[in-house]
Amino acid sequence: MAQTPSEQPAAASPTATTATPGPPEPSTARLEAFSDGVFAVAATLLVLNLKAPAGHHLAHDLAGLWPSYATYVVSFLTIGIIWMNHHAQYERIARADRTLLVLNLFLLMFVTLIPFPTGLLATRLASGANEQVAAAVYAATMLAMSISFFSTYIWSAHRRLFGDWIRERHVGYLLRRNVSGLFAYAAAIGIAFASAPASLAICGIVAVYYLLPGRPLTD
Amino acid sequence: MAQTPSEQPAAASPTATTATPGPPEPSTARLEAFSDGVFAVAATLLVLNLKAPAGHHLAHDLAGLWPSYATYVVSFLTIGIIWMNHHAQYERIARADRTLLVLNLFLLMFVTLIPFPTGLLATRLASGANEQVAAAVYAATMLAMSISFFSTYIWSAHRRLFGDWIRERHVGYLLRRNVSGLFAYAAAIGIAFASAPASLAICGIVAVYYLLPGRPLTD
Amino acid sequence: MAQTPSEQPAAASPTATTATPGPPEPSTARLEAFSDGVFAVAATLLVLNLKAPAGHHLAHDLAGLWPSYATYVVSFLTIGIIWMNHHAQYERIARADRTLLVLNLFLLMFVTLIPFPTGLLATRLASGANEQVAAAVYAATMLAMSISFFSTYIWSAHRRLFGDWIRERHVGYLLRRNVSGLFAYAAAIGIAFASAPASLAICGIVAVYYLLPGRPLTD
Amino acid sequence: MAQTPSEQPAAASPTATTATPGPPEPSTARLEAFSDGVFAVAATLLVLNLKAPAGHHLAHDLAGLWPSYATYVVSFLTIGIIWMNHHAQYERIARADRTLLVLNLFLLMFVTLIPFPTGLLATRLASGANEQVAAAVYAATMLAMSISFFSTYIWSAHRRLFGDWIRERHVGYLLRRNVSGLFAYAAAIGIAFASAPASLAICGIVAVYYLLPGRPLTD
Repeated sequence: MAQTPSEQPAAASPTATTATPGPPEPSTARLEAFSDGVFAVAATLLVLNLKAPAGHHLAHDLAGLWPSYATYVVSFLTIGIIWMNHHAQYERIARADRTLLVLNLFLLMFVTLIPFPTGLLATRLASGANEQVAAAVYAATMLAMSISFFSTYIWSAHRRLFGDWIRERHVGYLLRRNVSGLFAYAAAIGIAFASAPASLAICGIVAVYYLLPGRPLTD
Repeated sequence: MAQTPSEQPAAASPTATTATPGPPEPSTARLEAFSDGVFAVAATLLVLNLKAPAGHHLAHDLAGLWPSYATYVVSFLTIGIIWMNHHAQYERIARADRTLLVLNLFLLMFVTLIPFPTGLLATRLASGANEQVAAAVYAATMLAMSISFFSTYIWSAHRRLFGDWIRERHVGYLLRRNVSGLFAYAAAIGIAFASAPASLAICGIVAVYYLLPGRPLTD
Repeated sequence: MAQTPSEQPAAASPTATTATPGPPEPSTARLEAFSDGVFAVAATLLVLNLKAPAGHHLAHDLAGLWPSYATYVVSFLTIGIIWMNHHAQYERIARADRTLLVLNLFLLMFVTLIPFPTGLLATRLASGANEQVAAAVYAATMLAMSISFFSTYIWSAHRRLFGDWIRERHVGYLLRRNVSGLFAYAAAIGIAFASAPASLAICGIVAVYYLLPGRPLTD
Repeated sequence: MAQTPSEQPAAASPTATTATPGPPEPSTARLEAFSDGVFAVAATLLVLNLKAPAGHHLAHDLAGLWPSYATYVVSFLTIGIIWMNHHAQYERIARADRTLLVLNLFLLMFVTLIPFPTGLLATRLASGANEQVAAAVYAATMLAMSISFFSTYIWSAHRRLFGDWIRERHVGYLLRRNVSGLFAYAAAIGIAFASAPASLAICGIVAVYYLLPGRPLTD
């Protein structure tokens, strides 16, 4: 009797709670909509760091913009992957509390920040001046962003916000998979002072690693 | 018989009214979608106020950008909190009328404006020139924004747009909680002429206050 | 038997058609989502036309930016009102065809353009140089935008895309209400060559006119 | 019994899977929301390439901006059409896998890039310097974008992600219709070195071709 038709849709659909008599259950629907918007705008603003060359040797000048392309690709893929992992996370989370909303807000604050160190690193890789500091700032932004993301996982596990189908061992696997990026970004900060391009390459490798699918949670 | 399966989903879901025979009930679904978009873009445009330093002492120059970081954090958190409160408000509002749409439009106009005084205050805090005026303009924008937000609450209470589960004492509590920010922003305008950083700090404290959860409305 | 629980939700929800056996009915759900995004971004980009003054008489310089504020308010309210009318229109439209999608695309192209004549008119009203041409370009953009909007109404009426509850006399009223803005914008183009501020004022009056609610379609 | 009321809504609605006991089915709902956001922002950022002329012959100077208008229209319509085709594609796709998400991410990366070659081509068509290289870069970006889009079709056909109502011959028709743009963009790269405006015109013709409706898939 738990699956009577009149109850199931109202319980399942986040938008269906408006007309129900009691206070609506906290849902993740608008959190996801707002986050999707921030991810999409932050990813799209990256293109503003690409400045059209003004000189008379356009093909040569465009080739000289390789730091802009490299940082654009790494930053875009990183934002895209955070979006994909955010997407996967909120399919596993059944409900949101106020603390999760606030932690998510800090995540979005660092995601939104990404175009700034991206433009900074592109400019400094092209000129060679202080490129180590710029690469360290870039990797540090990625680290702050992934710490924010990781904290939403920790909180969801702590408060058992995950859906019932997520077992203990799944949570452990998800935490291990998500924590590995933290160490890579921390390493990239240190490596920045030896080689700025190598530091950027590590950030790119993190993006490619998370592009690959994780272990399915069906067993 | 009120919960017959054929009626409940159609009444509950805002997107389900398209194929119904009568004129659709005014819903808040697209108001929320458009507002989410404006909140997300306004929050993300704040990063354009962060200009990469061009000099040869990057670490030092980045440290000198603290007014840009401080205003970025206060403005981002403020927009994020308006979003969260907007989110909470429209979970309590069961239907929207034309006046509410117009009041919401004025709210969004001031939210969209926030990147302008944010950049202005960051520049003036860094140079020290006319920073009092810039801080007063910043706090005044926050005040105009929160007056717009408050007016949507007043209107919703006046026209009883809230869902049935919101009792009179809940509305009173929500109004008191929302009005306190107005007085803080008004004070920040005056304090700006004594100290611009103190005025910004008050705006930051308002953001942190609203980050903390309010009293639940379940009793 | 037409309201059996298994059929009603699938027919009513635009997002519910994915798993149905036949080809999905054309719905307006994603058209609205994409349009909401464009409206929200175009409205928010207007703030980039507000440039922080660099001089040492900030209060005086901010007062001198009145053309930027006036054009910001008129453009923001105009985009907001197009969004509201778009919202109302697609509550009346039961299904979208390819032509409607294309006409909507042209509408969005002119909405997206609005920040350009807005910045142009603000600059020219401040300097006084060629302000008539700038005001005419501004009003012409509004006219092109409203012709695009009107054409989606004409097409919807012609192909009977409106829901069954919209009667013939309602369509006639909606067309008359929407066509009045066209004449006002056309007049604003001519008046621009006599007075640029008067031309902007007419565009503002059109916005206020459409902010007021139209006749309800319930009779 | 397959259409029991308790199962049908849960299976049909992407947002309805949150509260189901098992892991949620991969759906395309948030992929579409994020993509819509990126399309909308990329299309709207194009307006930032339109710079208000500063001179004293505004009407003449505005007429001289024709390369900016032409590239704006072609780029906006192209992004709009990719959105429309993306819209149509995900009405045909019943489920998304991780690879499709990644391929879609690459598509969005090239869509987001479009404002950069658009501004570049507008500037170079106006000055006449290196306009061939700029037109080739513009057409190459369009080619990379359409290869990404085509690859999502190939993958969907390969992994049979399309809904059951899509027959084999429909997939073949869709692939043929989508591949024709690839050849046109490749031709536009070569033609750019003979005539930059002709290359842009070909990109515009591709946009108009896809604006026209394809064969319906109902037979």
